[in-house]
Amino acid sequence: MAENEVALVVGVGPGLGAALCRRFAEAGMKVAMSARREAPLKTLADELVAAGELAHPYETDATDEGAVVRLFDKVSADLGEPDLLVYNAGAFQRTSILEASTADFERCWRVGCLGGFLVGREAARLMVARGSGTIIFTGATASLRGSAQFFNLAVGKFGLRALAQSMARELGPQGVHVAHVIIDGQIGSPRYAELAKERGPDALLDPTAIAETYYRLHRQHRSAWTQEVDLRPWVERF
Amino acid sequence: MAENEVALVVGVGPGLGAALCRRFAEAGMKVAMSARREAPLKTLADELVAAGELAHPYETDATDEGAVVRLFDKVSADLGEPDLLVYNAGAFQRTSILEASTADFERCWRVGCLGGFLVGREAARLMVARGSGTIIFTGATASLRGSAQFFNLAVGKFGLRALAQSMARELGPQGVHVAHVIIDGQIGSPRYAELAKERGPDALLDPTAIAETYYRLHRQHRSAWTQEVDLRPWVERF
Amino acid sequence: MAENEVALVVGVGPGLGAALCRRFAEAGMKVAMSARREAPLKTLADELVAAGELAHPYETDATDEGAVVRLFDKVSADLGEPDLLVYNAGAFQRTSILEASTADFERCWRVGCLGGFLVGREAARLMVARGSGTIIFTGATASLRGSAQFFNLAVGKFGLRALAQSMARELGPQGVHVAHVIIDGQIGSPRYAELAKERGPDALLDPTAIAETYYRLHRQHRSAWTQEVDLRPWVERF
Amino acid sequence: MAENEVALVVGVGPGLGAALCRRFAEAGMKVAMSARREAPLKTLADELVAAGELAHPYETDATDEGAVVRLFDKVSADLGEPDLLVYNAGAFQRTSILEASTADFERCWRVGCLGGFLVGREAARLMVARGSGTIIFTGATASLRGSAQFFNLAVGKFGLRALAQSMARELGPQGVHVAHVIIDGQIGSPRYAELAKERGPDALLDPTAIAETYYRLHRQHRSAWTQEVDLRPWVERF
Repeated sequence: MAENEVALVVGVGPGLGAALCRRFAEAGMKVAMSARREAPLKTLADELVAAGELAHPYETDATDEGAVVRLFDKVSADLGEPDLLVYNAGAFQRTSILEASTADFERCWRVGCLGGFLVGREAARLMVARGSGTIIFTGATASLRGSAQFFNLAVGKFGLRALAQSMARELGPQGVHVAHVIIDGQIGSPRYAELAKERGPDALLDPTAIAETYYRLHRQHRSAWTQEVDLRPWVERF
Repeated sequence: MAENEVALVVGVGPGLGAALCRRFAEAGMKVAMSARREAPLKTLADELVAAGELAHPYETDATDEGAVVRLFDKVSADLGEPDLLVYNAGAFQRTSILEASTADFERCWRVGCLGGFLVGREAARLMVARGSGTIIFTGATASLRGSAQFFNLAVGKFGLRALAQSMARELGPQGVHVAHVIIDGQIGSPRYAELAKERGPDALLDPTAIAETYYRLHRQHRSAWTQEVDLRPWVERF
Repeated sequence: MAENEVALVVGVGPGLGAALCRRFAEAGMKVAMSARREAPLKTLADELVAAGELAHPYETDATDEGAVVRLFDKVSADLGEPDLLVYNAGAFQRTSILEASTADFERCWRVGCLGGFLVGREAARLMVARGSGTIIFTGATASLRGSAQFFNLAVGKFGLRALAQSMARELGPQGVHVAHVIIDGQIGSPRYAELAKERGPDALLDPTAIAETYYRLHRQHRSAWTQEVDLRPWVERF
Repeated sequence: MAENEVALVVGVGPGLGAALCRRFAEAGMKVAMSARREAPLKTLADELVAAGELAHPYETDATDEGAVVRLFDKVSADLGEPDLLVYNAGAFQRTSILEASTADFERCWRVGCLGGFLVGREAARLMVARGSGTIIFTGATASLRGSAQFFNLAVGKFGLRALAQSMARELGPQGVHVAHVIIDGQIGSPRYAELAKERGPDALLDPTAIAETYYRLHRQHRSAWTQEVDLRPWVERF
């Protein structure tokens, strides 16, 4: 069944986004990948295509309504309508409330939450019409907790969680599975190699391991769907 | 002590906002009241002044950064720097995700959350400088739960709660009390007279009763501050 | 009105329990105080009586069904049926799960939760018959979070919170207010004088300040009742 | 790897417990199954053995410390030390707080929570010694919400969740994965055939679908472990 399925991942960087694309391709899905800048997407798409998979990069600003509509049009034309959508974009500027800039506050919310709305709405429209599909939003520690100086992240992540819950309640009975994954720790990447060494083996979240849980959410039977699941490394203090 | 204190309530309509102004005035505080349109404010201010209180109306768009800065300047000049700030504004458009408009989604967030940020930041700057003060945000059922078709409200309310938590954690140790009140039910008002009759006595939240809890939060000793409290009618199903 | 009211506090030690008794007496309530051992109760009762208040000590094992029934009979006969009940008892043994004893696990739950059930049920029976009354349960950080090696406390406190929620939902519409107070920090007492000095002014919860919030819960109008409220010192990390 | 693994499921009835045993056996694990009465276990064990699996029934009262210790001794001797433990027992008596019996309140907690402690502790001792293993506790809607007249269930389920969190925080860094699954809806079974027909296709949780999520938890890589996940049918109102 997965062979004819289409996955669209919005917010593809070198870490989790790329791992999601690889996992879905490995399962035989056609993979549409989107990010603000095309260059890194291209490399990943080339890698997947070279491995014999069907993959396509799309440069898109997920906070721009028109661009999002065009993205869904293009993906549907190129690969088919998405069966699985992941919204994985985010932005964060740590700051004291006393020094906070309005522009940063807005920008972080637009990337962290408004984009999820725009992309989720387009996916919902296609999926409800067909009576099936999966929409997964990427959350974080800041989805559940507004830590000091983390409001720029938490406001968007709390909002995205609200959106995910509301969409799940509306769309579930129409056959669309909406899930929210709380990633409660640092995701490993070359950028965090130093930290990874310091903390010891498997102490940062392995993107491939995270992607496995996303994939399993998509495979769940509709009689037992998950709305929210958390993920963290074995040694994480929480 | 309350006699020299200044309360600023942003988002004053005929219901909770007015009740808060009355309660603070009754305690001897000078009351600055703000809303988008001045007319209803004027009536309330006149009522309080006629009762011998010091009260002042301010027409302000709380989602406009410049207007918010000017509001704090004017209040500080007219009455003194606020000792107590309440952010009580909100906006809501119920809709299916399939029919949702981007403009509504943004507007509801700007009133429900961005305004809280703008007003809260200005208050925080003044209060941290003095090492004391209280900031209270008005939450709702939708602060904890994203119900079907309620995302326009819940995204802003979840975000406001994230902001309140983050500010509480940063500002508490600097002497500023940040609290979040979850109003879990319908507030009574002339508009809901029919519903009130149908549900029976005290089945809608009495604004005066809510205002009492806000006032008590401001009076709490700093060794035992509340960050979050809920309020609902005795007969409410929850 | 408070002059004819009766408050029963179960779990009265030298800290919060005593402060609750003093606050309720100060408001003109007749105060019944209960604990496992009578000696400290006697001193507090003598203090209140000397101040002209009506106060009565009761030695009771709150985890013993028969003893709890007798307590309510005696209080009702001596002072009148309680208008306000506070369940404030607790027990805790920190341990690794690997070393945990079954006896400790059970004992902590019996004091932390079963006693709340026994006392709460008797209060509910009297209060529902009269259509009014307040029942307040004392929670802790461990009511919301099962920390490593804290399960002996958390199992009882989570359970007590479940009980409080369930009783609130059943008894609210019958006129009985059930509230749960989460005390998220260390309560100050002579025993923690060293810690208090180290942390600085007002860094431990002042029992008198906590008691004020309990009293205000009892005074809330039924159109705007609180089910849950948290309390912590201004400098507490949370 | 799963071929040499041992799964122990405590609380095996005809529904979820049986489905878990089947799923683990299907993955090549040796399956120890425990319940209060042996008869139904025998049938299931015979079924699995006939299918060529290694399965063994154990009649055990999970609330009896000695019996639980003996269970682990026997399982370890018969099949090997468990790599995966599921605690799936529960008991519930719905009642008004006014009519509640102390015996029911205690009994429900002993089955719902004390048994989880006894079984979890024995598993933890074996697993920590080996530095690996998975412990999964079965939760319910009542793990998060104390509904009116549901306290007998909720007190145990809240407590079990506290235990699961505390064990996860202590044992994770020792290599043992502790997870809590919130089953938020009615599990389908022959007993609920009428309800299933009324609600429509897949409207009750299919035990086989639930079991898949339990199995996937056990297979998670330690860099991205789940502590809590919820499951509900697509049409469930929540």
